[in-house]
Amino acid sequence: MIRIGLLGAARIADQAIIQPAALRNDVVIAAVAASNLEKAQAFAQQFGIEHAFGSYDELIARDDIDLIYNALPPSLHAKWSIRALLHGKHVLCEKPFAMDAEEAKAMVAAADASGRLLIEAYHYRFHPVFAEVERLVKSGELGTIHTVRSNFSVRIAETPGSLRHNAPLGGGALMDLGCYPLHWLRTLFGGTPEILWADAICPKPQLDSSFELRLQFPNGPLCYVGCAMSEHLSRHHDASLYLEGDKGQLEVLNLVAPHQGHKLCLTKNGEAHEYQINGDTTYDHQLAHVIACIKGETKPLTGGQDAIDQMQLIDDAYKAAGLLPRGLCK
Amino acid sequence: MIRIGLLGAARIADQAIIQPAALRNDVVIAAVAASNLEKAQAFAQQFGIEHAFGSYDELIARDDIDLIYNALPPSLHAKWSIRALLHGKHVLCEKPFAMDAEEAKAMVAAADASGRLLIEAYHYRFHPVFAEVERLVKSGELGTIHTVRSNFSVRIAETPGSLRHNAPLGGGALMDLGCYPLHWLRTLFGGTPEILWADAICPKPQLDSSFELRLQFPNGPLCYVGCAMSEHLSRHHDASLYLEGDKGQLEVLNLVAPHQGHKLCLTKNGEAHEYQINGDTTYDHQLAHVIACIKGETKPLTGGQDAIDQMQLIDDAYKAAGLLPRGLCK
Repeated sequence: MIRIGLLGAARIADQAIIQPAALRNDVVIAAVAASNLEKAQAFAQQFGIEHAFGSYDELIARDDIDLIYNALPPSLHAKWSIRALLHGKHVLCEKPFAMDAEEAKAMVAAADASGRLLIEAYHYRFHPVFAEVERLVKSGELGTIHTVRSNFSVRIAETPGSLRHNAPLGGGALMDLGCYPLHWLRTLFGGTPEILWADAICPKPQLDSSFELRLQFPNGPLCYVGCAMSEHLSRHHDASLYLEGDKGQLEVLNLVAPHQGHKLCLTKNGEAHEYQINGDTTYDHQLAHVIACIKGETKPLTGGQDAIDQMQLIDDAYKAAGLLPRGLCK
Repeated sequence: MIRIGLLGAARIADQAIIQPAALRNDVVIAAVAASNLEKAQAFAQQFGIEHAFGSYDELIARDDIDLIYNALPPSLHAKWSIRALLHGKHVLCEKPFAMDAEEAKAMVAAADASGRLLIEAYHYRFHPVFAEVERLVKSGELGTIHTVRSNFSVRIAETPGSLRHNAPLGGGALMDLGCYPLHWLRTLFGGTPEILWADAICPKPQLDSSFELRLQFPNGPLCYVGCAMSEHLSRHHDASLYLEGDKGQLEVLNLVAPHQGHKLCLTKNGEAHEYQINGDTTYDHQLAHVIACIKGETKPLTGGQDAIDQMQLIDDAYKAAGLLPRGLCK
């Protein structure tokens, strides 16, 4: 039985790990820690979790916990993931991984030193829909892919206490949403893209509510990346990837949460074929992957150098748009 | 300011009403009541709610609450909705409305006697995607609609304490999922359909994990209705409606939660046109509708006689499949 401890009484934990864990017989959510004991106890009671702790240190010091799920604000990811690793825990860390590439490097060094797993929670990555996209790109079925458009935008109003609207805590549209299309593209095309152009709209200092990027991958396609969080988007939710190759095109709708409805539209020789790929929730697949890694059955697909490179690209994008990497936002 | 009280510290409350309320400046979630005080306090603390009560009676007796959101198990909907109405509160009641039509009648009588609103939380009903489906059906664009296929199935494993796997609490696939396609069809075609055929699969007594129905609407189409909850479905989530008329066809994917991705495919003269309709979340639209009803700006689209007729059809479907209406399950 793999025993999981939750770092932070976070709303996302319910769908991201509590529900997936309830469907398995080899894991249990054994404990939760929050910034104070009342908050932790409240959360533990709501979700039927045995132990509640009023400090993060108490949780990571336990010797009956195997895996820590870090759902704290991004500004606390580095500090507490490193401490958990050095206490011998595996860590599944929410995205964005860290405030900047420097923090990411320190986290990966801690994982290396401890010999424990550090996996970034890009849940989409573990779903069969993404495996299908990867297969189509790598098989050459689309020919040489020359142009890519990608977007993740969600109609989100600013609510009191919202992390994603707070730059010093790691907020911003690129950190919260745009990180997904950046990660899709990096995973599909590899290497470090050149940033040709970057532009952000900031309703308050350093806080990007939308971000546009043009990237050129080495020996790869020109990629347009967009993301936005605002009350005024035409659609509530858009998580789309469009790949244009010289032999075909692929459009994917809802690559972030395909279990909530998605579409693949593959066009070759002028004929469009629309289909879907069966799967569980992205979070079920993510937990299955993490467990398989802990059991030594497979190797992590995210985290490590991938996470460092991802944060470096985010840092560089902020700089290219005339903003500060999040680690410098105070 | 309309002050909302939550009956039950339910998981669904976060997306169904807490998040939508946070986006408005004319409502506030003022209180929550649970079966014990610790549970209520835990929930109040997690979501920043001012008052917590350890009994439902304490909440509905408050004179500073305008609207009760009833998210208790279906077996408790009638009792507590009636008490809340008789204490002068408006009630938004989760679906399924009641255990059977008899309970629904008593609830509607209480609403009539109190002069307060009683609205059933069929959130899909208030989203512009459903308005578009209704427009296409009522305008005659599809001609005479003769055949309809509808389905709502979700890959759901049985977890400890699951209400939907407990018949005496109001569980079952038809109560939990199939109620949606039944409500779509009743809203689109009106009147009381004849049940031509009904069949349920029950892994334990009276607990339907899947349900199939064939319905004939008066002067309307033959409708196939399916629903299933199981670990073994080919797709994680299917909420689809297919309408076949003599002038055209319409396929709708994800009519339950179109804000998480949906598709309308309208075919006329052999040409298919695929599109989407902008909107907020179904729950945002639902809360906007409830508030507009309270302010007297519009009339409720669900609840009342509609809820009684809906429960009567569910009762009749259970009987037609050789099962007990939920009110008789002990």
